[in-house]
Amino acid sequence: MRLVRFGPRGLERPGLLRNNRIVDLRSIFPEIPDIGEAFFKNDWLQKVRDVSEPGQQIDTRLGCPIHKPSKIICLGKNYTDHVREGGSQVPPKPLLFSKSPSALNGPYDLILLPQSCGQVDWEVELAVIIGKQCKRATRQNAYHYIAGFTVLNDVSGREAQFSDSQWFRGKSFDTFAPAGPAVVTLDELGDAQDLRLTAIVDGQVMQEGTTADMIFDIATLIEYISEDITLYPGDIISTGTPSGVGIFRDPPITLQPGNIVECRIEKIGSIRNKVVSHLDI
Amino acid sequence: MRLVRFGPRGLERPGLLRNNRIVDLRSIFPEIPDIGEAFFKNDWLQKVRDVSEPGQQIDTRLGCPIHKPSKIICLGKNYTDHVREGGSQVPPKPLLFSKSPSALNGPYDLILLPQSCGQVDWEVELAVIIGKQCKRATRQNAYHYIAGFTVLNDVSGREAQFSDSQWFRGKSFDTFAPAGPAVVTLDELGDAQDLRLTAIVDGQVMQEGTTADMIFDIATLIEYISEDITLYPGDIISTGTPSGVGIFRDPPITLQPGNIVECRIEKIGSIRNKVVSHLDI
Repeated sequence: MRLVRFGPRGLERPGLLRNNRIVDLRSIFPEIPDIGEAFFKNDWLQKVRDVSEPGQQIDTRLGCPIHKPSKIICLGKNYTDHVREGGSQVPPKPLLFSKSPSALNGPYDLILLPQSCGQVDWEVELAVIIGKQCKRATRQNAYHYIAGFTVLNDVSGREAQFSDSQWFRGKSFDTFAPAGPAVVTLDELGDAQDLRLTAIVDGQVMQEGTTADMIFDIATLIEYISEDITLYPGDIISTGTPSGVGIFRDPPITLQPGNIVECRIEKIGSIRNKVVSHLDI
Repeated sequence: MRLVRFGPRGLERPGLLRNNRIVDLRSIFPEIPDIGEAFFKNDWLQKVRDVSEPGQQIDTRLGCPIHKPSKIICLGKNYTDHVREGGSQVPPKPLLFSKSPSALNGPYDLILLPQSCGQVDWEVELAVIIGKQCKRATRQNAYHYIAGFTVLNDVSGREAQFSDSQWFRGKSFDTFAPAGPAVVTLDELGDAQDLRLTAIVDGQVMQEGTTADMIFDIATLIEYISEDITLYPGDIISTGTPSGVGIFRDPPITLQPGNIVECRIEKIGSIRNKVVSHLDI
């Protein structure tokens, strides 16, 4: 299954994407909650599975496919080649940081260059969507708690990230977490640790990697995080980025107004965001 | 006004605390949302202001007075004496990091020592509760966006904080953000930059400071954060801690099972949390 949220920003409705058509789930289930904690907690995934309506070709905006997660936990330095390009060391255990959920953005929305921070960069990442509340999961049962997966661009304001030393601000500017286009459920995706992921800027391939190369795999991450931090349905774990970000290139490349950034993951799809200056809006 | 949430964890109801009595707001307004984004967005604060019911003496648990903020933004190194005790430099601009909202905890609930991290410490802080959506606020209009204030203990797992270098994990373990006892509204509090704040462990005063000593004051913080990060109603800004934390003492003091930590701010009140081992629950 592919779950989407469609409609104008702030008014998105839950939908099921099938054969390029969207089934408006609220027209079938008027009481269905938005796709987030209440959706997964009340096992709407099961009810939606049996929907047989063909849906409609809807020419509308897609929103971020997850509504108001309690947190976005991100991984730093989780691909060896990315650690190497940054001149850094492989961390002995997963390195966690967070993006503010208020940075979430639709899969084709604009990325807004902030007024207060330069050197804006891309990072294609596989994002795990939690489906069940989870504490002290083990590597063995970790997938039991996963609802599905989506693509997330961990847009990064390097100037803020490096000058603060704490990464939160540089990672949390408005629009800095475009995600989607859909949550692809676990059963549909197959092996999440064998997916090609690519970032393309204005047609030029910048990142090309495979989720097989994660230093700490998804099951390990869920075990590690949930040891002392409860994961809630709808929470997002963004699993880190392979090499090829802009800041570590020689010379460095940073996003400029007008650039189109595409992040693509095999079997999930592409998100494509145009970069605009804060002066343009 | 003093807003509280009362009842068992996960089933809290919105209440108004007055003369040691709680008015159950849902018994007056059946449609009132929990105290969080929807509450402030729909201006329930105004409606609640006119409630004249005397309330009841309710002997029940108080929960964290804010339900599911989109983010908790915390300040590092925002009091000179605390910067000094850490052997650090005053930052040239506000230093932001985040705690996971899933760490929020009631004002008298247990603090659970994590399994994966030692050296747990206290930090008394004044927490600002945002009341109106806010982008590009100025120092001059910043207070327009504040709903009120509460006490927050920015409990810190120093082992994780220092070994990760990113502070998010050590600050975000379950129960690591006890807050309350009430949100005291702006009109009732008076000058938020002239409040004594105190942390007491087992009867011994550990921190004693005044919000007059913040390096970056509340209005400056709101202007700074909201330049490129939208603040939403219910969001929490925890404004940093004065000197006297445990880790920088000689010898260092860390929280042990059985300790009682009290964090007190003048005109707001006290939160008091017992520390327990993960082995005890």
